[in-house]
Amino acid sequence: MVSEKNQEGKEMGKVRVGVSGYGVIGQRLADGVAKQEDMELVGVADVAPTLAVRALYEKGMPYNLYLASDENRAKFDELGIPVSGTLEDLVKSVDIMLDAAPNGIGAKNKPLYEKHGVKAIFQGGEKNEIADAFFHGYANFDNGVGKDYLKLTSCNTTGLIRAVDCIDKLVGVEKVAITIIRRVADPGDYHRGLTNALQVDKAPSHQALDLMTIMPHVDATGILVHTPVTHGHIITVVATPKKEISKEEMLAAFKKHPRIRVVRLEDGFLGNASLFRYARDLGNVRGDMYEIAVWEETVVHSGKDIMFAINIPQEAVVIPENMDAIRAALNMNGSQEKALELTNKYLGMKAR
Amino acid sequence: MVSEKNQEGKEMGKVRVGVSGYGVIGQRLADGVAKQEDMELVGVADVAPTLAVRALYEKGMPYNLYLASDENRAKFDELGIPVSGTLEDLVKSVDIMLDAAPNGIGAKNKPLYEKHGVKAIFQGGEKNEIADAFFHGYANFDNGVGKDYLKLTSCNTTGLIRAVDCIDKLVGVEKVAITIIRRVADPGDYHRGLTNALQVDKAPSHQALDLMTIMPHVDATGILVHTPVTHGHIITVVATPKKEISKEEMLAAFKKHPRIRVVRLEDGFLGNASLFRYARDLGNVRGDMYEIAVWEETVVHSGKDIMFAINIPQEAVVIPENMDAIRAALNMNGSQEKALELTNKYLGMKAR
Amino acid sequence: MVSEKNQEGKEMGKVRVGVSGYGVIGQRLADGVAKQEDMELVGVADVAPTLAVRALYEKGMPYNLYLASDENRAKFDELGIPVSGTLEDLVKSVDIMLDAAPNGIGAKNKPLYEKHGVKAIFQGGEKNEIADAFFHGYANFDNGVGKDYLKLTSCNTTGLIRAVDCIDKLVGVEKVAITIIRRVADPGDYHRGLTNALQVDKAPSHQALDLMTIMPHVDATGILVHTPVTHGHIITVVATPKKEISKEEMLAAFKKHPRIRVVRLEDGFLGNASLFRYARDLGNVRGDMYEIAVWEETVVHSGKDIMFAINIPQEAVVIPENMDAIRAALNMNGSQEKALELTNKYLGMKAR
Amino acid sequence: MVSEKNQEGKEMGKVRVGVSGYGVIGQRLADGVAKQEDMELVGVADVAPTLAVRALYEKGMPYNLYLASDENRAKFDELGIPVSGTLEDLVKSVDIMLDAAPNGIGAKNKPLYEKHGVKAIFQGGEKNEIADAFFHGYANFDNGVGKDYLKLTSCNTTGLIRAVDCIDKLVGVEKVAITIIRRVADPGDYHRGLTNALQVDKAPSHQALDLMTIMPHVDATGILVHTPVTHGHIITVVATPKKEISKEEMLAAFKKHPRIRVVRLEDGFLGNASLFRYARDLGNVRGDMYEIAVWEETVVHSGKDIMFAINIPQEAVVIPENMDAIRAALNMNGSQEKALELTNKYLGMKAR
Repeated sequence: MVSEKNQEGKEMGKVRVGVSGYGVIGQRLADGVAKQEDMELVGVADVAPTLAVRALYEKGMPYNLYLASDENRAKFDELGIPVSGTLEDLVKSVDIMLDAAPNGIGAKNKPLYEKHGVKAIFQGGEKNEIADAFFHGYANFDNGVGKDYLKLTSCNTTGLIRAVDCIDKLVGVEKVAITIIRRVADPGDYHRGLTNALQVDKAPSHQALDLMTIMPHVDATGILVHTPVTHGHIITVVATPKKEISKEEMLAAFKKHPRIRVVRLEDGFLGNASLFRYARDLGNVRGDMYEIAVWEETVVHSGKDIMFAINIPQEAVVIPENMDAIRAALNMNGSQEKALELTNKYLGMKAR
Repeated sequence: MVSEKNQEGKEMGKVRVGVSGYGVIGQRLADGVAKQEDMELVGVADVAPTLAVRALYEKGMPYNLYLASDENRAKFDELGIPVSGTLEDLVKSVDIMLDAAPNGIGAKNKPLYEKHGVKAIFQGGEKNEIADAFFHGYANFDNGVGKDYLKLTSCNTTGLIRAVDCIDKLVGVEKVAITIIRRVADPGDYHRGLTNALQVDKAPSHQALDLMTIMPHVDATGILVHTPVTHGHIITVVATPKKEISKEEMLAAFKKHPRIRVVRLEDGFLGNASLFRYARDLGNVRGDMYEIAVWEETVVHSGKDIMFAINIPQEAVVIPENMDAIRAALNMNGSQEKALELTNKYLGMKAR
Repeated sequence: MVSEKNQEGKEMGKVRVGVSGYGVIGQRLADGVAKQEDMELVGVADVAPTLAVRALYEKGMPYNLYLASDENRAKFDELGIPVSGTLEDLVKSVDIMLDAAPNGIGAKNKPLYEKHGVKAIFQGGEKNEIADAFFHGYANFDNGVGKDYLKLTSCNTTGLIRAVDCIDKLVGVEKVAITIIRRVADPGDYHRGLTNALQVDKAPSHQALDLMTIMPHVDATGILVHTPVTHGHIITVVATPKKEISKEEMLAAFKKHPRIRVVRLEDGFLGNASLFRYARDLGNVRGDMYEIAVWEETVVHSGKDIMFAINIPQEAVVIPENMDAIRAALNMNGSQEKALELTNKYLGMKAR
Repeated sequence: MVSEKNQEGKEMGKVRVGVSGYGVIGQRLADGVAKQEDMELVGVADVAPTLAVRALYEKGMPYNLYLASDENRAKFDELGIPVSGTLEDLVKSVDIMLDAAPNGIGAKNKPLYEKHGVKAIFQGGEKNEIADAFFHGYANFDNGVGKDYLKLTSCNTTGLIRAVDCIDKLVGVEKVAITIIRRVADPGDYHRGLTNALQVDKAPSHQALDLMTIMPHVDATGILVHTPVTHGHIITVVATPKKEISKEEMLAAFKKHPRIRVVRLEDGFLGNASLFRYARDLGNVRGDMYEIAVWEETVVHSGKDIMFAINIPQEAVVIPENMDAIRAALNMNGSQEKALELTNKYLGMKAR
């Protein structure tokens, strides 16, 4: 289904990718694609001169910008921000779109992708019906191979599945009961927030239900509580393994996982904000971190069950699995193993 | 061991009680005692003209004030705050002391209580060795009967045990795995706080360990995460009952419990802050609530395990169990049943 | 224009008052009226069984409840909450309405008040056109005398005017430049909030403009910044007096004002949260405080200008001026002096 | 006083710089020096394998690390972090030290600098006595020329002086009255914080007093209120100019200033958190911003006075003035104008 239009990219062995929606996730998807040596970022599309677009302009337009709607064209002109064309122009120039438009807009964009025979990856905010498969790079890669439309899990579910799948690969998992201590807004959000309040959601949380669509052999439930912070969700997981597993075995498996970072309170990683500070100090763009973290000192047993706490860096955690999804949908690398290896390599993730 | 000195109170059938430490807990203990028709609050003791003491003065000194140290006597005089005597004067006038002095001061006060043959109840911040028994009104009342020195559990543990004991009485409990989403400071605290950060503690949390000292037949573990809010801890509990229990049975048992309030998201109880607002709107002094709350919509199953979320109003939750402890230590009412009935009645707690 | 219908109340010399909207402000208006010995609270009206209404019910219905809309009548019946009639029934039974319905609903209610010849006091959220005069008990009482419809200033403006009017009465005020450090939500609010962000508003803030409608001889401007807290706004005021004034004179004037409380950092009043805690410890219902506070240690000079910081307890601060407004509109007490004296006495406010 | 030891650097025309204390400020000073083409960063010194040091190691040691104390040498060895020597080794290899050690440690380090005849720049946390002059690149550059020891102002004062000096250069400033809405902790801080509270400081704030040490002809006062946020202080300034100035003139002057960024609410810069997000999206390391920002819509007049709000990015704002201080102390560039031009150029700051 991939068209022949991408001549230059093809010669270079590169898949051409577009990003729709240049917000919190879209910006990071664009950066992620730009790091994949076998992909070419053709451009990004948005509707208005948001702060993210203004920053792109102030940086000197490292990415081409396309207009997802004509409504604000005059504003772009007034600001002198160069525009490379319309969203449709972008779609026509790529092999696959990463759709990170606001919730529900992906469904409106899909006919355009269909019209031009372009595959697409949608994010967690879209309805499941939009896609041929619900996808996770580690847990069900093969379900995505060759598919036209994939939907990724949301940030919490993506990170959670990494950990649960890691146990599952080791000893099998029967069930999990999770408590999501959710950050309520991203840094810089002014349209949502909580002030001095914890907010409880109806159980089971959608993350538990979503996990079961990706890992149908696991029984999952959970409770989500929103908290007034911005730097990462923390999830406690009570997992019932099929076979008992020691704390040491558990930690060894987590440490071997390229997308899981084992950290210690003792070293100064006291919570979600320590991880954000550390990622800033690493010099990571935007202070982002692709890995989830597990706190070593939280791993305990409850009878046969194993319990631990993980950190989900909500702004960046889904980027690797999106790269995996491109690889699966376009069957770029022949196998899950090779696909994950390349994503991890290009994004700088490795066992530590 | 109770002395004969309390002549007036005795004639009236009233036990004479003193409170050491007039802070967040001490103020509420004093109010709690004042509501018990079979107890007399002889007075409260503190060391300095804190805001709490100034408020007592502005209210017209409804309680007698004793000086726990002579250091600041001049300040009290300057402010015109009447002082009824020293801490030792207070101790000599009572049958039992409720010690709510800052952590570690209780241990320093104990010799004074011993000197005058006065029983005492210590709070969760003291070390376990201070007391003859670790006490909870519902879960191990009989352990406290006739004892000289009891130690209460901390706020989280006290509330948690109410819920776990409720299940235990119904079908038995094998183990629990808890996640404590802890409020990090009380309203008005300036000496501690978190800003935009979640902080993880080493597991298992002390609350899980403390639960096992009160309920030794239950295997408990848990993870605690501090959050930047002030109006109540939220705990998620994953409990493994000895016998399966339906959501309806669970809720029915909680609703029958005088110290547990079942609330619904649907009715507007969206989190810990809704409960605080509700208690303020009830006209409760300080907006306090003695009951823990369970959110009906959070009760779910994880296999045979049952999972739910409770709210712990940290400032007031331990007051009822302190009243129970007085009743146990002085064997005031002949039975646990009668003792709990009176505490609940005088504090206005009932099945709803 | 006051009708003759209020026979019982009249004989008792009491003015009959109704409250429309039983939310954060409405509840406190009802309590405030109930404390005025020369007023009778006929009832309160709301549209749904909110938490506030449920609390009223749990307290045993100290106030009669009327339905402002028939939409949710079945829910009230289901919950067993007794209803005394419709909003119109309430309006017909009173001399004056305090309208604390959500912003904009007051304008919809006004025709009902007009139909029944009932006066009304509207809150700061309504448009200025709704009223015959914009009212403040201290700064422009006479403007409200005998008027049918008055609009009160919002919480920040009400408190600010107390302080500015206090200086104005002393030495005259030429201009003020204010910085409002605004609490963004009330305790228990889940529909609005900020998380780890300060939000700047377009200047001049409406509070400065509103001040000039009440005190037209003062030139006022200001900047407002929203902050993620719930317990009281803090305003810094830079006031240019007509005549120089010393710190001591300023403090003496504030201390004599029954609605201004001078507090000290040194005594433990460290910020807005200390004042909330203190009001809770005073035993004030809901932990409310009617007075604004001035921090003694913040009073400084900038050349001839005087600068200081005040605290505005946003939930309760407007209640006294609402009582004043009833007194003015109905010309109950013959003079501003007598009216303020009675409001202050019944609400327990006095020079300290 | 600069020794001859820096042979290699000298040949290259580079001044050799060391940084003591690799914390929030020290890391950014190191990065700032590394960007100055006429300076060489010899290394950084710290005492323990903090998260910042671990991040340096994970990045591959772009900077040489020296040990400020031998106490933790074993930990560095265990972690495999290469150490280039002691703090004294570092001092011996440089022309000037930037001391960003915790408050008070600078005073302990000074004898070492004196011993080796090395100049040093201290930060705002040290006492004024430590230095020969209190320095600001724009407001009093000449005071620092050729001096051995300079002390920089703290973050708030540094940013504030940029704005006040800008007005002063334009029309002269008589006095300023400031309100500092202070962020209470940096992102990732767990050792300090406020939760749901505003905290008031004794007035006048030290920032106003410090401003007067740099700009003695200006009368300054102010009130500081701490707020529970992490992404930048906001200061409102009421300035009395010597000559009236229009909003347009004021904005034009701010726009021409390379270290002041004029932003608009209308464009989406809603508060301090928008600026942090924008800096992250710019790809700035750590999401840092060197410029203060002025909100265009906050510039208003209060009579002849001009009032406006500025944002102070507390982690990075002092870096430019530190680079200026090196240039002044070593008299590197012959004039203030040339020195500022180079600092601005190397840090990417320009009029916008």
